[in-house]
Amino acid sequence: MSFHRIAIIGLGLLGGSIGLAVKSHLPGVQTTGYDADPAVRLRASERGLADVICSTAAKAVKDADLVILCVPVGAMGAAAQEFADALKPGVLVSDVGSSKATITQALQDALPGVAVIPAHPVAGTENSGPDAGFASLFQQRWCIITPPERADSKLVDRLVDFWEALGAMVEVMDAAHHDRVLAVTSHIPHLIAYTIVGTASDLEEVTRSEVIKYSAGGFRDFTRIAASDPTMWRDVFLNNREAVLEMLDTFLTDLAHMRESIIASDGEAMFDLFTKTRAIRRSIVALGQDDARPDFGRSDHKG
Amino acid sequence: MSFHRIAIIGLGLLGGSIGLAVKSHLPGVQTTGYDADPAVRLRASERGLADVICSTAAKAVKDADLVILCVPVGAMGAAAQEFADALKPGVLVSDVGSSKATITQALQDALPGVAVIPAHPVAGTENSGPDAGFASLFQQRWCIITPPERADSKLVDRLVDFWEALGAMVEVMDAAHHDRVLAVTSHIPHLIAYTIVGTASDLEEVTRSEVIKYSAGGFRDFTRIAASDPTMWRDVFLNNREAVLEMLDTFLTDLAHMRESIIASDGEAMFDLFTKTRAIRRSIVALGQDDARPDFGRSDHKG
Repeated sequence: MSFHRIAIIGLGLLGGSIGLAVKSHLPGVQTTGYDADPAVRLRASERGLADVICSTAAKAVKDADLVILCVPVGAMGAAAQEFADALKPGVLVSDVGSSKATITQALQDALPGVAVIPAHPVAGTENSGPDAGFASLFQQRWCIITPPERADSKLVDRLVDFWEALGAMVEVMDAAHHDRVLAVTSHIPHLIAYTIVGTASDLEEVTRSEVIKYSAGGFRDFTRIAASDPTMWRDVFLNNREAVLEMLDTFLTDLAHMRESIIASDGEAMFDLFTKTRAIRRSIVALGQDDARPDFGRSDHKG
Repeated sequence: MSFHRIAIIGLGLLGGSIGLAVKSHLPGVQTTGYDADPAVRLRASERGLADVICSTAAKAVKDADLVILCVPVGAMGAAAQEFADALKPGVLVSDVGSSKATITQALQDALPGVAVIPAHPVAGTENSGPDAGFASLFQQRWCIITPPERADSKLVDRLVDFWEALGAMVEVMDAAHHDRVLAVTSHIPHLIAYTIVGTASDLEEVTRSEVIKYSAGGFRDFTRIAASDPTMWRDVFLNNREAVLEMLDTFLTDLAHMRESIIASDGEAMFDLFTKTRAIRRSIVALGQDDARPDFGRSDHKG
């Protein structure tokens, strides 16, 4: 591993998991950690999310040859400014944010002359905070690296090696394409889930307790996603606005067609769509990106 | 148990699970089973989904004091007509369909003079067919019984006892209210999931293989629901049209508001909604209707 000292800024689900994964997979590498919240720093210390938990971002980054920002998308620029003057020459600054074009711009603005190569490990759970991380979060998950134009290809290679060492599979693409891909595979699903859970909790005809009781009919899967960190997701939608709106409008057009099929009692159109979507599911399971057990193994009594 | 002979018509996920659950929880009760598909009957026989698998529906129901229809919602009326003349006096006919108003009508039309009390166990997985069922499917799940006007309350009580014996918790309500509750907790979530999976598989800018690779960002949860049985779900939308359209329009209004918030960069509106939806998740987990492990336990390496 060509990085010897890694600073992790932000010690929630992602930052904490990186710290634990480095400890588990890269025992020779030293980690420092910082979080703006003193209570998070205390808990991070107790859990050992990094070798040393520092009281300022500047202290955390000062000897680091890799700095990874693990703060909400909207806080990246300000967090980088906080430690900009403390960076050592030759350092690489990266991040884990879910939208890449605006983050790239924010980090480059905050860190003129510093090598910045953003990344996004496509992994997570609905939990957040310093207790949520675990060492195997990145195992068999994809990490997308989005080098800006004129990025040093050797640094890109070193960042690829780093993520592969943590168990991830790595893909390199440009930030704009990343933002479109994630709009459909992650951002729109979260937006829809948040919205339908909100809709269901405000109905007049159906009580909230009924929604909760009968959630096993499908609704509960949406509530898991809709329990994700509010700040993180607010920032994603504010930062990946264009791609999200583009995909949302495509989805709305399709949903309007489906609504017309229901109004017209067009069973054939429904059946065709419902058959096609099964194939996608099979591919996801075949590629190891989901659990093949029915109901994710929740009903693990199958006999 | 006041039912001694139970006939199960349709031997997929639900019918098969009822047969296995009766065997496990009600050892003195005899079951007969029928499915229109000879291959399903053969497999049902091999798995022992019922004590006797019959070659016609009439044979299956002739000695039964409880007949449970487990066919797609749109096939209920025709399936009932097939065995109408073979029913013995005093039999109770029920079902497991996901929409209740149209089924009640169809069964009453097909079976004049026969006691009909529809039911809906709110339980299932994305798998279907004779291999999908398992004995514990109904454990700690709700079953909604929707007695028509003037239903015999003793028969209702016997049906409640039956479902409780299989491990379910039972609620009684009228068919119209059931249809609204399920529209929001089950039908709309499925409609949305089918649609977004369809949208994602037809994009020009993002390939299908990218959608599959990066599905861990949230999309994969929707694909599980969108892998459910196409015939069953087509029939649900055709039969619960009014309630589904009503709830869909409420959802579309809320989604339009969210779209406006994104356009206006209204982070506060997003944050408020995203915070509220976490509370619903907690209630569902607290009531035992979902798995509290992050990611449903898919990342069960937490340490």
